[in-house]
Order: sequence, then structure tokens, then C-alpha cells
Amino acid sequence: MSRFERDTAVEPIADGRYRATVDPGWAVIEGAAPNGGYLMALAARAMRDGLGHPDPVTLTAHFLHPPTPGEVEIDVEVARAGRRHTTIAAQLRQDGRERVRLLGTFGDLAAADGLTHVDRPPPDLPPIGDCIDATTRGVEVAEAGGYPAPPILERFDHRQPKALVGWSQGRPTGRGETGGYLRWRDGAPMDTLGLLTVADGYPPAVFNLDGSSLGWVPTLELTVQVRGRPVPDDYLATRFATTAITAGYLEEDGEIRDGDGRLVALSRQLALAAR
Amino acid sequence: MSRFERDTAVEPIADGRYRATVDPGWAVIEGAAPNGGYLMALAARAMRDGLGHPDPVTLTAHFLHPPTPGEVEIDVEVARAGRRHTTIAAQLRQDGRERVRLLGTFGDLAAADGLTHVDRPPPDLPPIGDCIDATTRGVEVAEAGGYPAPPILERFDHRQPKALVGWSQGRPTGRGETGGYLRWRDGAPMDTLGLLTVADGYPPAVFNLDGSSLGWVPTLELTVQVRGRPVPDDYLATRFATTAITAGYLEEDGEIRDGDGRLVALSRQLALAAR
Repeated sequence: MSRFERDTAVEPIADGRYRATVDPGWAVIEGAAPNGGYLMALAARAMRDGLGHPDPVTLTAHFLHPPTPGEVEIDVEVARAGRRHTTIAAQLRQDGRERVRLLGTFGDLAAADGLTHVDRPPPDLPPIGDCIDATTRGVEVAEAGGYPAPPILERFDHRQPKALVGWSQGRPTGRGETGGYLRWRDGAPMDTLGLLTVADGYPPAVFNLDGSSLGWVPTLELTVQVRGRPVPDDYLATRFATTAITAGYLEEDGEIRDGDGRLVALSRQLALAAR
Repeated sequence: MSRFERDTAVEPIADGRYRATVDPGWAVIEGAAPNGGYLMALAARAMRDGLGHPDPVTLTAHFLHPPTPGEVEIDVEVARAGRRHTTIAAQLRQDGRERVRLLGTFGDLAAADGLTHVDRPPPDLPPIGDCIDATTRGVEVAEAGGYPAPPILERFDHRQPKALVGWSQGRPTGRGETGGYLRWRDGAPMDTLGLLTVADGYPPAVFNLDGSSLGWVPTLELTVQVRGRPVPDDYLATRFATTAITAGYLEEDGEIRDGDGRLVALSRQLALAAR
């Protein structure tokens, strides 16, 4: 069992109710704030349990209160069970308090056979051989700065263009952008639940805008459209961009391609700019 | 009271329960299928009732079964009531059957005062004086074809570049795109609930791809991020694009600017390509 599978495992404890454990290894800040995409994947595993529709073709999460590492409960409720799709709502609770509310439509992407026509360029990235090992570098930068690296960083093998990680040493690119190549660091296969975590798996793209954009950028809502099951054993190629910050609200749009260049997910979140 | 306000009015009938009437004037096909963005606005009016947070900063709707014109009930449930935001779930039912499930976070955009930095070009449109009256033209094309115009067409005063409406006469542009200028046809002020309807207010952008893309394009899910209260009495400028059709799934991304050029909404939907 991979680290991702272990840390997103759910156990049914009653009709429509699951128990799970938020692992500290997916925190954005050591000891606190689990990554939103990780919580989404954990909830999605409960939501799809027992369905013939394993893939979250569109899943939205609203983040209400961050849970801490430890036990959580997930309640799921089917709104519509159809032939091609099932729509499900869910609540993730800890200590009796709701932490994340979700709503998604699940399908079976292996059975989807309609038109394919992609008219958008893939993420604009140099060849992977020209990227840096951004996981190792991130840990080094954190340690040199005297603070622990974000635990989630070490869940991935990140290969990124050097310019996109310069913000962490005072050299932002000047635009709201991030991305690169990544796969699970333990070599586990990537699946459509893993893509939910990848969609929220980088520091905010807005950190590349300028030094004043650094800080806590809380996600209010994240929606991921999963479009395909990725080639499981290759790097994904990603690009995330923030282009509209208005009165403190910002979006981050993501695109994820698999190792064959196929578009496997689009994501968009609404977050608050750092104050 | 404007047509939009009248046709999205809701009446509280119990704690957290509202009654409303789906008006036939917002159908996509005469006598059937109310527009999704109209249903979203109707539900949003119930969701925000009594809140100090009138603006849907991010609202997601999953369309389960189309209602018919006539009475509906809307149940709303607050998931989190905070100082800056309230997160609310809702169900729109007709004849005891759930038709639309929604989840949204509402705020007060008049009180939002954070950073504004927009790094994306406005919709690429010619001056409004070079656009055609696409409402009148749409009605003429429909009548010449021997079928009734879509009722929702006549709710708007549409001014569109001629090239973008050529698909209706066999001349698509070859790309998944639409947009133009629009305002309420009755001259009513535009507000942040109206933007929800505008975000779904055009025939699918994919109709401009080629002749084979015409047909029923059901929306599975629509998410609208409302970013600002529009100048109420001017045309909005919009652009919608579909760039990734994968195995029959497609997104439609929209951007809406107000008469002052301010970005007031971003939207994205997941729909099924016509078969």
C-alpha cells in the first residue's frame, strides 16, 4: 500500500459514515493545516466507496475550519445515482465540528468514449532534464532558513524550472505562476484521487508575483475536473496561474497532463490573498 | 420590480425552506429545460436570504434533473456562518424530486478591500458599435428556420460580433468560443445574482467548433466566482471558451467585465459534448 493510499484510507462505521485519520505528513506547515487537496482526496475516497463510478469528474470542496492531524468522520449522501454519474455531498468533521463540505459528481472515465479535441497548449515547461530537484532544494532552503520544510513537500518528487522556485529566496518571477513535473516520492502509481491532491500540491502561484504576496493564502473553495486516468508511473506535467486578484480574492487555475501529454485534470480555486 | 427579480423571487415557507416559481421565460428550449444559470440565481436568492453576505463569491450547482416551469421548493442549510463569509448548501426540488444541488460561499463584496491586481486581457471584442443586435437576429434566424426562439434569448439585449453567431447559419468560427456585450433587455440594473445567469446565458461556446458540435450539451456542474458588483446600468463584456474536450467531457470558462472594464466574474462549467 502506498503512502497516499494509507493516509487517505477510510473505514465504514455506519450507513453513509466513515472514519479516517488525517496524517501529519500532508501538512502545509509542520504540526498544523493539512493540505486542502489531501483532505479532498480523503473525503473523495469515502464518497466513491461502493459506487461503480470511481472517478471524480468534478468535485468541489469548501474549507470551513482546518482540522488537525488525527481522527475525522466523513458523512456522505447520494443526491442522484444515475447510469453514467453519481452526485454526492459529503461533510468532513472532527470533534463534532464540520471542517470541509464537499459536492461532487463521479463517473467512470475508463468507460467514457466521447469526442476528444484539445485546443490548448500543454504546460510551458522546459524538458525535465533541465529542471531542478525542487523537493531536495525546498528542504535545503527551509533548513538553511532555520524552519522545518512543509511536510507535504516530501510526499512528492518535484522537478521544477529553477525560475519558478526563486520566490523562496527573494527572486519571484513577477507573475502569478508555478508548476513543473511531479510524481509520488515513494514511486506509487498516480490515480484520479491523487490528482485532487496534485491540484493543490504547490505553494500558491501568487508567491511568484512579488515579495508582498507571501503569507497565508487560505483556500475558500477548490474545484477539480478530473478528465482522465493518468499513466500511473510517469511524471505529471502541471501549470498553475493566478491572473485576477480583486479586492483580496484570487483564483488559481491549474492544468495537469500525464506522461503521455494527455490532459487529465483542470482545477480552479478561490483563495484570499495574504494580508 | 424587474423581470429578473420577479422571476427569481422566493418566499419563505418554513425555517430554511422557500417556495418559488420557475418561469417559462428562461427556458433554453420553449416549454422545457430552464436555463441552469437562471435556476442558480433563483436558488442563490433563497440561500442568501437574511444573511449579511449578499454576494455569491463562489457558488457551485450540480444539475440533477431539469425541472419544468412551475412551483419549486428550495431547502437551505448553513454549513458555516463566519464574520466575512457564510457557506451554505441548498437543494432545489420539484414534485418531491431533487433537481439541483448547490454549495456556495457568500460574502459582502462592497466591504472587500484587499489587493487588486489583474494580469489578464479583457475579453477580445470589437467596439460595441461594430457588433450586431444578436437578440433580434437570433429571433429572426429561429423564425426563418420555422422554430420558436429560445425564450432566454429575449431576456437579454445581446450585442455580439457577427462572426461569433455565424454557427447558427452554418458558419462556425472553428474554435470553441462565444461572448459579446449584454444587459437585461428590460433595462433593469445588473447585480451579482444576475451575473450567475449571465455566466450560463449564451448558447454553448462549443457550437462554434464545427457543425458536429451542435446538439444538447447538458451542464453537469457550473461554478461561478463573483468578484465584484457590476456597474448596474451598462453593458457587460463577456468571453466564453471551450478548449478541452476529452472523451465527451468539456469545460466552458467564462470571464465577465462590467462597463468600467472591471472583472466581475469568472465561471467554469463541466458539460457533456453533444453525441
